Amino acid sequence: MLHLIGIGGQWYMVRMAFSTQLEYEIRDAGCDFIFNLQAAYTPRQTVVQERLSFNQGLSANIYTDAPTQSRFIAVHALQGQLSVQYSAVVDLTHFKAAPNKLSEISPQSLPGHVLPYLYPSRYCQSDRLLAFASQQFGSLMMGYSRAQAIRDWVYNHVRFQGNTSNSNTSALDTLIDRVGVCRDFAHLMIAMCRAVNLPARMVSSMDYGADPALGPSDFHAYVEVYLADASGVGRWYMFDPSGTAIPMGFVRFGTGRDAADIAFATIFGHVTAAQPVISIQVVPDADGRLVVPRRVPFALSTDGP
Amino acid sequence: MLHLIGIGGQWYMVRMAFSTQLEYEIRDAGCDFIFNLQAAYTPRQTVVQERLSFNQGLSANIYTDAPTQSRFIAVHALQGQLSVQYSAVVDLTHFKAAPNKLSEISPQSLPGHVLPYLYPSRYCQSDRLLAFASQQFGSLMMGYSRAQAIRDWVYNHVRFQGNTSNSNTSALDTLIDRVGVCRDFAHLMIAMCRAVNLPARMVSSMDYGADPALGPSDFHAYVEVYLADASGVGRWYMFDPSGTAIPMGFVRFGTGRDAADIAFATIFGHVTAAQPVISIQVVPDADGRLVVPRRVPFALSTDGP
Amino acid sequence: MLHLIGIGGQWYMVRMAFSTQLEYEIRDAGCDFIFNLQAAYTPRQTVVQERLSFNQGLSANIYTDAPTQSRFIAVHALQGQLSVQYSAVVDLTHFKAAPNKLSEISPQSLPGHVLPYLYPSRYCQSDRLLAFASQQFGSLMMGYSRAQAIRDWVYNHVRFQGNTSNSNTSALDTLIDRVGVCRDFAHLMIAMCRAVNLPARMVSSMDYGADPALGPSDFHAYVEVYLADASGVGRWYMFDPSGTAIPMGFVRFGTGRDAADIAFATIFGHVTAAQPVISIQVVPDADGRLVVPRRVPFALSTDGP
Amino acid sequence: MLHLIGIGGQWYMVRMAFSTQLEYEIRDAGCDFIFNLQAAYTPRQTVVQERLSFNQGLSANIYTDAPTQSRFIAVHALQGQLSVQYSAVVDLTHFKAAPNKLSEISPQSLPGHVLPYLYPSRYCQSDRLLAFASQQFGSLMMGYSRAQAIRDWVYNHVRFQGNTSNSNTSALDTLIDRVGVCRDFAHLMIAMCRAVNLPARMVSSMDYGADPALGPSDFHAYVEVYLADASGVGRWYMFDPSGTAIPMGFVRFGTGRDAADIAFATIFGHVTAAQPVISIQVVPDADGRLVVPRRVPFALSTDGP
Repeated sequence: MLHLIGIGGQWYMVRMAFSTQLEYEIRDAGCDFIFNLQAAYTPRQTVVQERLSFNQGLSANIYTDAPTQSRFIAVHALQGQLSVQYSAVVDLTHFKAAPNKLSEISPQSLPGHVLPYLYPSRYCQSDRLLAFASQQFGSLMMGYSRAQAIRDWVYNHVRFQGNTSNSNTSALDTLIDRVGVCRDFAHLMIAMCRAVNLPARMVSSMDYGADPALGPSDFHAYVEVYLADASGVGRWYMFDPSGTAIPMGFVRFGTGRDAADIAFATIFGHVTAAQPVISIQVVPDADGRLVVPRRVPFALSTDGP
Repeated sequence: MLHLIGIGGQWYMVRMAFSTQLEYEIRDAGCDFIFNLQAAYTPRQTVVQERLSFNQGLSANIYTDAPTQSRFIAVHALQGQLSVQYSAVVDLTHFKAAPNKLSEISPQSLPGHVLPYLYPSRYCQSDRLLAFASQQFGSLMMGYSRAQAIRDWVYNHVRFQGNTSNSNTSALDTLIDRVGVCRDFAHLMIAMCRAVNLPARMVSSMDYGADPALGPSDFHAYVEVYLADASGVGRWYMFDPSGTAIPMGFVRFGTGRDAADIAFATIFGHVTAAQPVISIQVVPDADGRLVVPRRVPFALSTDGP
Repeated sequence: MLHLIGIGGQWYMVRMAFSTQLEYEIRDAGCDFIFNLQAAYTPRQTVVQERLSFNQGLSANIYTDAPTQSRFIAVHALQGQLSVQYSAVVDLTHFKAAPNKLSEISPQSLPGHVLPYLYPSRYCQSDRLLAFASQQFGSLMMGYSRAQAIRDWVYNHVRFQGNTSNSNTSALDTLIDRVGVCRDFAHLMIAMCRAVNLPARMVSSMDYGADPALGPSDFHAYVEVYLADASGVGRWYMFDPSGTAIPMGFVRFGTGRDAADIAFATIFGHVTAAQPVISIQVVPDADGRLVVPRRVPFALSTDGP
Repeated sequence: MLHLIGIGGQWYMVRMAFSTQLEYEIRDAGCDFIFNLQAAYTPRQTVVQERLSFNQGLSANIYTDAPTQSRFIAVHALQGQLSVQYSAVVDLTHFKAAPNKLSEISPQSLPGHVLPYLYPSRYCQSDRLLAFASQQFGSLMMGYSRAQAIRDWVYNHVRFQGNTSNSNTSALDTLIDRVGVCRDFAHLMIAMCRAVNLPARMVSSMDYGADPALGPSDFHAYVEVYLADASGVGRWYMFDPSGTAIPMGFVRFGTGRDAADIAFATIFGHVTAAQPVISIQVVPDADGRLVVPRRVPFALSTDGP
């Protein structure tokens, strides 16, 4: 096994192969679905191959959101079973940076496309956390280390436990209840970041590297924070506040303000859903090199130039 | 005074002249502001002239959000007084439609840029209102009339009263407390619309036509719902759930999911703000015609083709 | 089978025989429990026989709350299994009244022991519902019929479904979500009653008469509202907003402001609990008469003189 | 001025003289009020003299709650002005204890009348704070010092500021928002105490000793926690989490679970209220001795034997 070799700010790429399978039983005469489960096409995430199939013949309405490259596919399915299978191989080319070289950008200087990620959203009510976040993180040195301190606070104060939250659970609930799953950790970290003017957003992915004791492979949610590198170039850097998975293996599906934006499936009708079946593994690249994701002491980004 | 004369689906335009004045006392060494108070440039809202001035010399970071045409201007102001004056003359060319010709579009068929307005947001937790909205509005005939029924429900069940809500107040609060100001009416209507799969969003404007008994002219928030006309063309149609102002006189400033997106000023520091001073009036157009906004039995849109 | 025979304002009594069995696995070295699952001794509920047993030898701290006659039994149990069995036979002697003879009592004239049931409590935030309840019920004729209208509103607007709420769910949640179980129906009815100045409280019981399709016999929560009869005598009258059970068969365990006061078990440690096993049936009285509880068009009270 | 002289566990008593004046303008034809603003009669608070007067001739419904000695007076007032004046002189005979001699009592061993103060209430949702309180205070040594640690945490993490909360504000809000007035500090401390099984309740009083910079004398809310002394005798000990006033000068009006129980006035109608006018001072006792309340390093109780 060849390990990763850094060249300048880059590494050899990581190649991930994965598949997801969704099964629904539609109880109404028909039902609309909006799926957001395909790997995004970005300069740092190349989709080498992908295959999407439905068991029903469907006419799909396809849409890619320009700023985030989130891919939406809307379909109308008929009563009965709907099976969705998606598999892909993607190459990730991480930008890596020394954490201590990354700085915050004042609100006034942020690019316009970043502004929405400063504002509160459905599950990340940062407007309520101004006093708390200022107390806790307001006097810390600004930069990547402050985002990391927020991530660590969430990791250290919230207990990971399945079935302790639901689709209504927001960052305020998690701050009070101190328990949740990956999405809850992400919402709380995002809300606290925004409360100290750090732009933060949520990405949907899979939990590559998670301890099998937590159960079979699953969808995952992680956090990105917008910071400037030593040249002043802004990028979104990855954080995993639940600490359950390995960021270097994160494939990007949807990108948005919070879970409301990036559900892998939004369903408009009465449906019984099975647990998604997911598999993900690292595979050798075109040249036969296998670069295995691992936890690294660098700041990683798969967004931006 | 010449009254409006319809030609096909259009009317002669309405010309509005207005000014806003904001005064802040900045207590910190400096403070970032993001303003969103300029009239949007859209095919149906032409800015004939405008003038923006600050009493401090400032370097501004200017950004227009492509999908909504919301205009953001970010500045760093120094300790002391900050005065912002904006005045403009705009021409509004409304699209009008017979309400009974407007139909809903199923989620599966919506254009991608409309999808974010189906999802819950900070102040419009539509995910909580599925059962309520389905009980109340689920069996109504679909179309403009259903959006109107939601608007009327909000208007009839919430009492307008100043100083009864604050920046934390959300649609759920208003549904319980049954009291609020224009933004609260708008949030509740938006949340209920999304709960029955009607895409809905919020626009910031001024309360042209409001009863002087409610106080001096003020900023205003109204609602847009996305519907298809008889040709299947989708547009955002205006609703004023607070019933305080006259939609035909609404100038569009910011457009977004809810108040979190379209605050006229987002402030990153300690500041004392005076009450904004606003004036707005209808003026004759370039040909000397004065078309006075009034309440009309048509569906009006200032968005879309 | 002899059916009930009214004599004046009373009936022959109903005799209920029931048993409850609770099973816990205590994971800590020990754990305190406060149980509130014994039939109250009241002038209208006579405990003919009862038996309480624990599988562990325990020293119990026993307490009866004077105003409500709720019986608390506090124990310290050791690691391992704790089994609690309680069975009893009770005679219920209902006070019955013609609904149209019952009137509301103004706050000023209420007896002091009733005042706590006018105020908001953990799960019944009546202070938030003043406007809503006034809109909905404020103009109704005062009296039993108004309490009944509130009960019917809750029954008609909330859907009964298991596992849709949890121990945090309050009346405000149920008003928004429109789904729940008996305790949620009760909390919402209580909150609305208090919001129109009707004293209301919660009683824990068993769901005698429930449709077996809802599952095995279970604990139940119902509502009492304080009203005056034609002689001006105040009593607490029973309502079952979930409509799942038959009030004439309700045995009184705990009486309090809401579920926080009357949990059948409050547990101070880490414990795994099995589903309680409950059986309840009507049996012949000492004279061999069997009076079967049924739904009746009278107002019933098992409290007061 | 003679300073306090300890004799055994007691001191010479403190004599306080005070007056309160409430002014209402009743807009309806009439309005019920329930007042709870008279000094309680307890073994450690002797009412030497008192005077209550109303400007309207009223028939009052008077009630004293036995367990707490809270005094309620319910009246029906007519349209127009209602003035209420209450003045009294009370002697306080504090029980004092060395903090390190006071221990917690397990739930199983608490007297029954204390149990209600273990449970969550309207503004003190202790059931939501189990994880948080356990994280923060769970490993502290049990006893008075743990209650003090909770008091100090609240004092240190919440900012005192007028007009930042309202009658809906609960402990959960204050935990998030980190700002409030005396009642908010008290609610949060109470909720956290109950979450670690410390019985805690709220007392209404006046803010004797408050810094005049905070405004004129006002009503006040403080906290009592139930602990056992070295002889195993349980008493309620005073804490002032807002730190604004001097506990040795606290007169007891109402005692309850939270603000819902002990409002100085609960009003059932439309009323305009003026700011209460309060004065309070220490005066010499019958023997001419003046014992001035001051902050002391002892645990103080004005409840219990």
